[in-house]
Amino acid sequence: MAERPGERPAASGPARVYSRRRLLVTSAAAALSGAAAAAVGVGIADAGSPGAAAPAAPETREEDTVPFYGLHQAGVQSPAQSAAAFCAFDLHADVDAAALRRLLRLLSDDIARMSAGRAALADTAPELAAAPARLTVTVGFGPSLFDKVGLAAARPAGFADLPAFPTIDRLDPTYGGGDLLLQICADDALVVAHAQRMLFKDTRAFATARWTQRGFLPQGPAGQTGRNLMGQVDGTVNPRTDADFDRVVWSTGTGWFTGGTFLVFRRIRMELDTWDELDRSAMEATIGRRLSTGAPLTGTAEHDEPDLDAVDATGLHAIADFAHLRLARGDGPAAQLLRRPYSYDDSPGADGASDVGQLFCAYQADIGAQFVPMQQRLAAGDLLNQWITPVGSAVFAIPPGCAPGGFLAEGMFS
Amino acid sequence: MAERPGERPAASGPARVYSRRRLLVTSAAAALSGAAAAAVGVGIADAGSPGAAAPAAPETREEDTVPFYGLHQAGVQSPAQSAAAFCAFDLHADVDAAALRRLLRLLSDDIARMSAGRAALADTAPELAAAPARLTVTVGFGPSLFDKVGLAAARPAGFADLPAFPTIDRLDPTYGGGDLLLQICADDALVVAHAQRMLFKDTRAFATARWTQRGFLPQGPAGQTGRNLMGQVDGTVNPRTDADFDRVVWSTGTGWFTGGTFLVFRRIRMELDTWDELDRSAMEATIGRRLSTGAPLTGTAEHDEPDLDAVDATGLHAIADFAHLRLARGDGPAAQLLRRPYSYDDSPGADGASDVGQLFCAYQADIGAQFVPMQQRLAAGDLLNQWITPVGSAVFAIPPGCAPGGFLAEGMFS
Ligand code: HEM
Ligand code: HEM
Repeated sequence: MAERPGERPAASGPARVYSRRRLLVTSAAAALSGAAAAAVGVGIADAGSPGAAAPAAPETREEDTVPFYGLHQAGVQSPAQSAAAFCAFDLHADVDAAALRRLLRLLSDDIARMSAGRAALADTAPELAAAPARLTVTVGFGPSLFDKVGLAAARPAGFADLPAFPTIDRLDPTYGGGDLLLQICADDALVVAHAQRMLFKDTRAFATARWTQRGFLPQGPAGQTGRNLMGQVDGTVNPRTDADFDRVVWSTGTGWFTGGTFLVFRRIRMELDTWDELDRSAMEATIGRRLSTGAPLTGTAEHDEPDLDAVDATGLHAIADFAHLRLARGDGPAAQLLRRPYSYDDSPGADGASDVGQLFCAYQADIGAQFVPMQQRLAAGDLLNQWITPVGSAVFAIPPGCAPGGFLAEGMFS
Repeated sequence: MAERPGERPAASGPARVYSRRRLLVTSAAAALSGAAAAAVGVGIADAGSPGAAAPAAPETREEDTVPFYGLHQAGVQSPAQSAAAFCAFDLHADVDAAALRRLLRLLSDDIARMSAGRAALADTAPELAAAPARLTVTVGFGPSLFDKVGLAAARPAGFADLPAFPTIDRLDPTYGGGDLLLQICADDALVVAHAQRMLFKDTRAFATARWTQRGFLPQGPAGQTGRNLMGQVDGTVNPRTDADFDRVVWSTGTGWFTGGTFLVFRRIRMELDTWDELDRSAMEATIGRRLSTGAPLTGTAEHDEPDLDAVDATGLHAIADFAHLRLARGDGPAAQLLRRPYSYDDSPGADGASDVGQLFCAYQADIGAQFVPMQQRLAAGDLLNQWITPVGSAVFAIPPGCAPGGFLAEGMFS
């Protein structure tokens, strides 16, 4: 915490004085940083610190919180919340390892507070933090970050940008890339918006916002797989147990990154107008599962194991050769990565047409061994390709979690 | 219903045929409209109609629905849902009264279905409609609509664009105006997105999207007033009872518009970076209420009646002369219009700064007598003005509700 005071840039802006009651801070006060202003008694609120003037916020219920501290960052294995903002930043040119370390301390501290229902350090509205609605904030690093801050040696082995998938990609650079990611998820869009604002303040002196993309999921009962905007049950085959996560998601090995994971983030537009021209059986054949229940075409319940060898009356595979399910799975075992996607709707787009789709998020221990071959198979043959188009792409290394008193990615600096 | 078939424009797009299973519709089928295709057995799904191939959607729970039919449209007196999309359209130049009538029939029919948890007529994903999450869709008309369709005489008396408020307005036309409004609200952003897509299909042949703005509210317990992005309890003083709504919100008289209301929609940006420079007592003085509980500065509980005459130890009004509460209220009784605002967050804006605020929605029987003088008082003196900026503005006449078998605004055509 010794590093905090004075690091936040003073907010500047039109600070007019117009009240005979001196209600409002003067321009002089506005020019002071939070800590300095508090020291001279101007009363800029630090609601999170002991003795601040703010009344105690209402009590936070435990089922409303996801612990921040731990071996792994929250927001990966955590059941997906209903609202999300993905915010990518580019570091300022003058940010070196020491500055990045300060930024990570600031972020870790504020994320820990907000996850627990306490206000961020510079928060003047602690009431907006009191019901965190399972808030998680997950921090990630783009491949470009390591060289920029002079920590090339800390880049996890093999971590690099994705290869191109030229048959399917129609990438818009304004939706992709980035040195730093903040993935903010909660069951309440107000909580997401407030946390985002607090964390943007932390980053302001260090980085420039590159893109922000917002997503949502249905508010279904816990444990029930949600549906995407095509109406499909989406997320059936996924790691569930800790053992699954150890096998598929968490990075192993001995370096500082152990317990981290890698995120492939793809903004995938859905062409729902042409999708709508299909009848339901064509829709179901495209995936290899039923729309009603999400069951495989060879089964009756969502979690029935698909029978990839079964043939129908015509002698053809019941789950088509180019079905999304078959190609995604390949020859490997099920659940080859964690999919934790969000739907997005930015309709109408620039041309007045619908602009909807999926913020596809896949977490895994090794992008080259997990996502890439899968995406190559899908790019080559997936029936679904006719109705989906990747328009944004980014990869992020998600450092492991940290312990109380520590901060995210601290191992990278030692 | 006689008017429906053939009215929907055929979806067009890349309809490639590539499967030996003939999974997918052919380009020929894609060139047919829904009804015609069904007639020739291509199987374009109409999941809502009897006998369609789609499985019965899961049962809809009654507490999940807000009735569409009634004296008034839903979405005004209905307790505010947590997600909203406000979509404004401009009518195509060739839309006359008969075409508008067809559009309103289409919309009314699909809104009625979706509000009850049934799929819209052209919906191929009825599962997305089954849990409507208190979906309401409210239809409104801009002042420009009536002349355009040759129904100038039907324009409600006095209904016109707002006067300018030059001391505060910084209006961007891309956020304002419009011939037609669809206000779509539900407790699930996926439901909002899906309903929006269905209704955009209905409008496509008649109108062009002008703007869409999305908002959210906290997922608080029912009956508890929500907070806005400044952290304030927002929505305390509002009509509650049917008698309040009759007095303040619903249009009376004998014309076709009886039972309708008028919406003032203002996109109001919040300047939270400078707001954050205030200490809490300054924030509270600006409104005249406490941040913690929303109680007036002269009381202890949210719904305590503010004492506008009380003075503090210095002999000044305890609720400041230029406090938002005092100026908004003026000399009239409390609850002079219905406020049903949503928060928005489109951060970061074009300049990288935060772009957050309120989609202020005020419903009333008479804009000139209710909103306008209030906004004039606030424009002249409100302390809050330093931190809020109206950047978008529109007004809509919200026709009364309709009975089963009827459609919205039918009285306008007789
Ligand atoms: C908008 C784009 C996409 C949509 C709508 C979509 C939809 C689906 C659906 C409905 C399922 C079946 C249910 C389930 O297991 O969750 C599924 C399965 C799957 N998808 Fe996708 N998907 C998309 C993109 C991708 C991409 C880009 C990848 C990876 C490159 C991928 C990989 C998988 C995998 C691994 C499975 C599980 C297969 C299995 O083992 O059964 N999907 N997807
Ligand atoms: C972003 C903009 C605005 C914010 C943040 C805001 C916030 C508030 C808050 C916190 C209250 C007190 C609690 C309550 O009764 O709900 C309030 C009351 C009120 N506001 Fe606003 N307001 C905004 C804009 C407006 C505008 C544009 C108008 C009308 C022109 C307005 C009219 C009112 C009225 C009528 C009351 C109730 C006053 C009373 O009788 O006690 N507000 N507002």
